Amino acid sequence: MCRWMAWLGQPLLPEELLFNSPHGIVDQSLHARMGAEPTNGDGFGLGWYGTGDGPGVFRSLLPAWSDANLRHLAGHIESPLFMVHVRAAIGSPVQELNCHPFRHDRWLFVHNGYINRFHELRRDVMLELDPALFADVQGTTDSEVVFNLALTYGLEDDPIAALERTFGFIEALARKRGVEDPVQGSFGVSDGESLWAVRYSSDGKPRTLYFSQDPAAICHLHPENERFQRLSPDDRLVVSEPFSDLPGVWEPVPPGTALTVRGGGFLEMRAFEPRAATVQ
Amino acid sequence: MCRWMAWLGQPLLPEELLFNSPHGIVDQSLHARMGAEPTNGDGFGLGWYGTGDGPGVFRSLLPAWSDANLRHLAGHIESPLFMVHVRAAIGSPVQELNCHPFRHDRWLFVHNGYINRFHELRRDVMLELDPALFADVQGTTDSEVVFNLALTYGLEDDPIAALERTFGFIEALARKRGVEDPVQGSFGVSDGESLWAVRYSSDGKPRTLYFSQDPAAICHLHPENERFQRLSPDDRLVVSEPFSDLPGVWEPVPPGTALTVRGGGFLEMRAFEPRAATVQ
Amino acid sequence: MCRWMAWLGQPLLPEELLFNSPHGIVDQSLHARMGAEPTNGDGFGLGWYGTGDGPGVFRSLLPAWSDANLRHLAGHIESPLFMVHVRAAIGSPVQELNCHPFRHDRWLFVHNGYINRFHELRRDVMLELDPALFADVQGTTDSEVVFNLALTYGLEDDPIAALERTFGFIEALARKRGVEDPVQGSFGVSDGESLWAVRYSSDGKPRTLYFSQDPAAICHLHPENERFQRLSPDDRLVVSEPFSDLPGVWEPVPPGTALTVRGGGFLEMRAFEPRAATVQ
Amino acid sequence: MCRWMAWLGQPLLPEELLFNSPHGIVDQSLHARMGAEPTNGDGFGLGWYGTGDGPGVFRSLLPAWSDANLRHLAGHIESPLFMVHVRAAIGSPVQELNCHPFRHDRWLFVHNGYINRFHELRRDVMLELDPALFADVQGTTDSEVVFNLALTYGLEDDPIAALERTFGFIEALARKRGVEDPVQGSFGVSDGESLWAVRYSSDGKPRTLYFSQDPAAICHLHPENERFQRLSPDDRLVVSEPFSDLPGVWEPVPPGTALTVRGGGFLEMRAFEPRAATVQ
Repeated sequence: MCRWMAWLGQPLLPEELLFNSPHGIVDQSLHARMGAEPTNGDGFGLGWYGTGDGPGVFRSLLPAWSDANLRHLAGHIESPLFMVHVRAAIGSPVQELNCHPFRHDRWLFVHNGYINRFHELRRDVMLELDPALFADVQGTTDSEVVFNLALTYGLEDDPIAALERTFGFIEALARKRGVEDPVQGSFGVSDGESLWAVRYSSDGKPRTLYFSQDPAAICHLHPENERFQRLSPDDRLVVSEPFSDLPGVWEPVPPGTALTVRGGGFLEMRAFEPRAATVQ
Repeated sequence: MCRWMAWLGQPLLPEELLFNSPHGIVDQSLHARMGAEPTNGDGFGLGWYGTGDGPGVFRSLLPAWSDANLRHLAGHIESPLFMVHVRAAIGSPVQELNCHPFRHDRWLFVHNGYINRFHELRRDVMLELDPALFADVQGTTDSEVVFNLALTYGLEDDPIAALERTFGFIEALARKRGVEDPVQGSFGVSDGESLWAVRYSSDGKPRTLYFSQDPAAICHLHPENERFQRLSPDDRLVVSEPFSDLPGVWEPVPPGTALTVRGGGFLEMRAFEPRAATVQ
Repeated sequence: MCRWMAWLGQPLLPEELLFNSPHGIVDQSLHARMGAEPTNGDGFGLGWYGTGDGPGVFRSLLPAWSDANLRHLAGHIESPLFMVHVRAAIGSPVQELNCHPFRHDRWLFVHNGYINRFHELRRDVMLELDPALFADVQGTTDSEVVFNLALTYGLEDDPIAALERTFGFIEALARKRGVEDPVQGSFGVSDGESLWAVRYSSDGKPRTLYFSQDPAAICHLHPENERFQRLSPDDRLVVSEPFSDLPGVWEPVPPGTALTVRGGGFLEMRAFEPRAATVQ
Repeated sequence: MCRWMAWLGQPLLPEELLFNSPHGIVDQSLHARMGAEPTNGDGFGLGWYGTGDGPGVFRSLLPAWSDANLRHLAGHIESPLFMVHVRAAIGSPVQELNCHPFRHDRWLFVHNGYINRFHELRRDVMLELDPALFADVQGTTDSEVVFNLALTYGLEDDPIAALERTFGFIEALARKRGVEDPVQGSFGVSDGESLWAVRYSSDGKPRTLYFSQDPAAICHLHPENERFQRLSPDDRLVVSEPFSDLPGVWEPVPPGTALTVRGGGFLEMRAFEPRAATVQ
């Protein structure tokens, strides 16, 4: 299990959401409430858009709660679109290369969940990758391979369709290999302008996913925070677990759903359906 | 809060107690049951006696549960006396130099607990150190300074008396500075032949501490373990938290007690009483 | 030996000077040309002013040449005033807390050099610190203690005078203890608006120090760099070792000299003379 | 470029060869003399046989010269057969998973050199692996893939023949892809009883490799070392670069040669010839 969050809105110091929000993502690294495991201490990553070309990525194999550099960074960069991931490793080693977000050109990718018995599927999924992407896979997580398969299937043109094709392939492959319920998780993608998120699992019971319903509610959460009092209707948060328990702030994304968020407050949900595939 | 354990007995691969025991110390790094905080993920250390001069020490700022090197070491060194500590930092940074055990010549030292408001006391305690030890303090924990003050007060001659004098000084200093209940914890010390442990707090409610009452009971815990079936009456464990919940195996050390363990199954408890001191 | 650099001028991506300049500071971490030791691989630090309160600091115990996060940060933050330090440890451990720049509120401090036989002087220098600063010393370097002694002596009011008093004290103490030539190095200080640098050693042969004489020359160095073509007369670099060998660009700071750099191209040099002190 | 060494002989504390020998492997991490690059500071690894099942492996991404844990380990484990590798990364990230030695069951593998333009060859070499090994490749180095291809080709039965087949395949693949001079390096392999080493490159100018000709010469190197005075004719060292410049101690392995070392002083050299292969 892992936890992740994404912000799209006015430029913000990430520390507002990482450290200064009740039960924010860093607190969730130590005390997550939803899911099987409260500790997400196997490294973390922050990916952000703003100054410079493409996203900046800071990844560390220390727990997010104890990394002194994260505290500094979160208070000294400002970004209109950033993603944070805290990791609970399932099998694969705790290494920076296994920390999310993964990056490809302008794109960032995070995942909370797993591909069931991925060790048995890894080779066949790797073979399905665009050969030009094969040698770019640097870590050992299932998530990074999923990202590269989605890139192979056109993520840069249509992220949701590419993920539907990706999971369609994985599910067909899993059927052939006798692996049940292969896909589990919530997934986040961005190109620096839009944000896509998917909540899906093969067994119909995916990891949780929420979006912030109403900026006014966030203001209400942080009455002391001048910056938040300036929240506009454009600002949106997507999180695998709510930052606080206040009712009325967080809207759950239904299972089998894809979310698209854009500037100007645009938010759209639609059904997410893996595209059937055949594997020889 | 932290957790620690010490083994004195026949030579053993540490992995038996770190990874192969139900609710062993590595499991406690992720899921401690006693105390305010279940996670002890802010680094760890293993100190062992055996091959080579004095103790070997391996410290890492990764959580014990995810450190690949620890798994290898624990399975490839054999030691008749070793101590392991998993850390939950209270204020001071997560750095290898802040990980226990601390070492001085042949001596190792671990601590679970804290010195209350140590930031306010640090300078005066440092001034009390033998000047020759002053520059040897390398980290920023209260524990390392306590160890060096005990060394100043004769730890190498009489560990328990030195700790009694140490806490006597700290309590006198705290009174002068208006700091309440300054000492809290369980403390472990070894010179490679004997093991001393103290359970003490100024407020009379110290951190838990246990010893293994009877090797036969440990055999009972691990009926499948050939090595354990060969346990002799000489083998002893001291732990801040029991490895399993089986009744009859673990004997609690009473508050305000010092424990001395030696080869041949020697185990002695006596009252621990800080020696009153005056601070100018 | 270490290497450091400081930039004060128009906002810049640090990567321009860290990675894109011939023989920049990151190259110097692997191949320094001046001084006893070509390798400065014992950690590094980047301190920068810009977004957020006070300076951001990123420190790592990896060599600068191999740290993936440094590459990302250097390309995704923009700063009008930043300092970078690559470390070659002399005795004290390779830990993040021992990496420069050291920070205190708005202030950053870097040092290339050493205090001779500091182990013998450490206790007395620590006792001279403002007691309120004593417990803030977190690492084990001589440099951090020097910084805190300068803070004790009024660095925040007059950095150069405070350093003169600091070295006066250390030299008096060293005389008393029979330590020869105690102070060696180049020192950099900033409060986010101005930059101060000192080249001084007790033996009159201090580590090298240079400043960029003329922005036009830097343009000349990087004719392909659009950003540099926009250099204004306000832009200044201070470095412990020149980035390239082009004649006419770098002006050496004479031994026993203090440098003050401010916005608007202000640069002033004056004699640096430790203030005689007596140590009881 | 990297440096490595292997010891096969009487049980030894690795520190004798790592820290206490003039120009030993740790000194070579900072000041290698042979090859293009003097610094091998991108992590290191120590693999040793002795206590416990199979080899223990300790890998770190810090430079060998500054790792406090390595110093402790090297002085507190004793081993009759160990291998040490200090890394200079060529392209692939500095991560523990990229540090040598690589391990598979009882086997250890080290490599100094590279596979030319491996990024272009990686996919095809990975496809040639035994599918059961595919998902065990955890890092991103060429070396680990070479090791797994050799395992595929029967390394556990005949290490030298397997490496001949491995390089035959890579050379055939490289020809097909238009990659010149694909294989470069010295290679070390052990199963805990024997040691194999290969010096080979496609261009006929492989990285250096030496073995210790005569234990008496080693005694001569360390007249003050009691342990070395007890050297027996069984003791052997294989190194990519001599530990000292004393004439008469080190015998170069000729290009295109495989070395087999066994207990009892057995040492055999034979021609190493990649086995021609065809790649479809």
